[in-house]
Amino acid sequence: MGKKIVIALGGNALGNNLEEQVVAVKTTSKAIVDLIEAGNEVIVVHGNGPQVGMINNVFNENYDLHKNDGASYIPLANCGAMSQAYIGFDLQNALREECLNRGVKVNGVATVLTQVVVDKADPAFQKPTKPVGQFMTKEKADEMAKSKNWTIVEDSGRGYRRVVPSPLPKEIAEIDAIKTMLANKTLVICCGGGGIPVTKEGNKLIGCAAVIDKDSAAELLAENIDADFLIILTAVEKVAINFGKPNQENLSKLSVAEAKKHAADGQFAPGSMLPKVNAAIKFAESKNGRSCLITLLEKAKDGIEGKTGTIISN
Amino acid sequence: MGKKIVIALGGNALGNNLEEQVVAVKTTSKAIVDLIEAGNEVIVVHGNGPQVGMINNVFNENYDLHKNDGASYIPLANCGAMSQAYIGFDLQNALREECLNRGVKVNGVATVLTQVVVDKADPAFQKPTKPVGQFMTKEKADEMAKSKNWTIVEDSGRGYRRVVPSPLPKEIAEIDAIKTMLANKTLVICCGGGGIPVTKEGNKLIGCAAVIDKDSAAELLAENIDADFLIILTAVEKVAINFGKPNQENLSKLSVAEAKKHAADGQFAPGSMLPKVNAAIKFAESKNGRSCLITLLEKAKDGIEGKTGTIISN
Repeated sequence: MGKKIVIALGGNALGNNLEEQVVAVKTTSKAIVDLIEAGNEVIVVHGNGPQVGMINNVFNENYDLHKNDGASYIPLANCGAMSQAYIGFDLQNALREECLNRGVKVNGVATVLTQVVVDKADPAFQKPTKPVGQFMTKEKADEMAKSKNWTIVEDSGRGYRRVVPSPLPKEIAEIDAIKTMLANKTLVICCGGGGIPVTKEGNKLIGCAAVIDKDSAAELLAENIDADFLIILTAVEKVAINFGKPNQENLSKLSVAEAKKHAADGQFAPGSMLPKVNAAIKFAESKNGRSCLITLLEKAKDGIEGKTGTIISN
Repeated sequence: MGKKIVIALGGNALGNNLEEQVVAVKTTSKAIVDLIEAGNEVIVVHGNGPQVGMINNVFNENYDLHKNDGASYIPLANCGAMSQAYIGFDLQNALREECLNRGVKVNGVATVLTQVVVDKADPAFQKPTKPVGQFMTKEKADEMAKSKNWTIVEDSGRGYRRVVPSPLPKEIAEIDAIKTMLANKTLVICCGGGGIPVTKEGNKLIGCAAVIDKDSAAELLAENIDADFLIILTAVEKVAINFGKPNQENLSKLSVAEAKKHAADGQFAPGSMLPKVNAAIKFAESKNGRSCLITLLEKAKDGIEGKTGTIISN
């Protein structure tokens, strides 16, 4: 019987520039439509690291040059919004084409601009960690810290760089619209780049300079829509312990308890496998019958069928 | 009884840069929520002239400067996609806030990335008319015509400028998703800037360098969702004949036959009121009981109630 699946695409599913994106989304769409063709209901989340970085750089790094272009300084949240459209345009068309080519019926493919609410009191705001934009000289760093209120860190001798916080996703602002589309069999792309980070102030949503981990946002979405499976795609076929060592052990199944133990033992790299395993644990723990698959894009269908990848479940 | 209304926002509803946009969308949202509060079902279309112009300028006019930013040359269609997110982000939040402030219930507010299919055989492709980007020298114009296959015209002594076609909208690619959301009372923003122009090649949708008139796209949407009313907002309260002359006559009602006659008599300025009146005629003619209102943003509610504006109906 078909599963309800949230699939979180990693950076390699999209490429690093527009030329790469147009090619990458074809392979990505094949893997996603494989899952739909097998009878599953799928909703797509993607990262936006290189893309929002590029958009931010183009608008803002040479801002002075663009005064004649009618450009304003564009906050990071607005750059994130644009990245969802930049990616969604190519991704939805590749998915649409793949569905049509194979005769897989969906009620359209659509990209929904998605905001994800974060908590202003999230401790991440006190400790920004995600680098954004290009390296700066000390002089430029001081100027930007003063004029834009940026947090800037010195990066191991390579220069100065802006850092922004990575708070936890709390609420998907457009969840009602997303649920409606899903219930009517639209193939939805949403929460791109983890969503546009916003905070709530009364009835307002205010964009904030932050980056939400897309696997965390996908996990929240998976809970919200009562998915059976969260698929986190990455650069390895299976989660491993003793990674890169002679005694590396690739894992096919992990209980939540085992995953927590390995995480506590420092088996998973922070900023790499650890947030993926943490999202997997959170989803598997959230309700009976929920599982997370971590594997390669091209192994997603085999993984759902239990043939490869790492399944984390309670 | 409530009407189903497509509202097409003009440029003044959004401002010319980000600072103006944040302010303008508040007033715009008040006018839109007035209509919803009065019991109407509303779907929102907006223009994107200044916005897509700015995005195209920033990405492409100084393209050489951005090679270090990881930027590719971004085709106009992709710039259009980004403009929908750039505008939708602020517009949907202003609408959401206004609904919450007034206790007006909607099933969320969402921006749907929208592509509008145009016909490759549309005669507009043989005669591009819409200027895009900045003025160029003769040398730059020759280079761009050669390297990018642009059509470039000399603009009355002010320099050389790229022009793109403005073909008619034929099909809204995401119409099924839009109908689903509308049926479930989501307040939808779609067809921004007239939609991302795409042509069909087999099962593919291919972005093209063109600009679709947003009033035409709104008209197509209004037909597709079986709307009762198309509201085209503009800079005047009423359509007039003998505009700007001593014998100017403001019109409260126009039959399709009258509107056609005035249009044939050259009463409406091409590129300004004429396309609006033509969209109004097309909608009013498409089915019994369909009307178009042309008026100012702040008069939309009064206009629907028959108190002002120009109603064009069969």
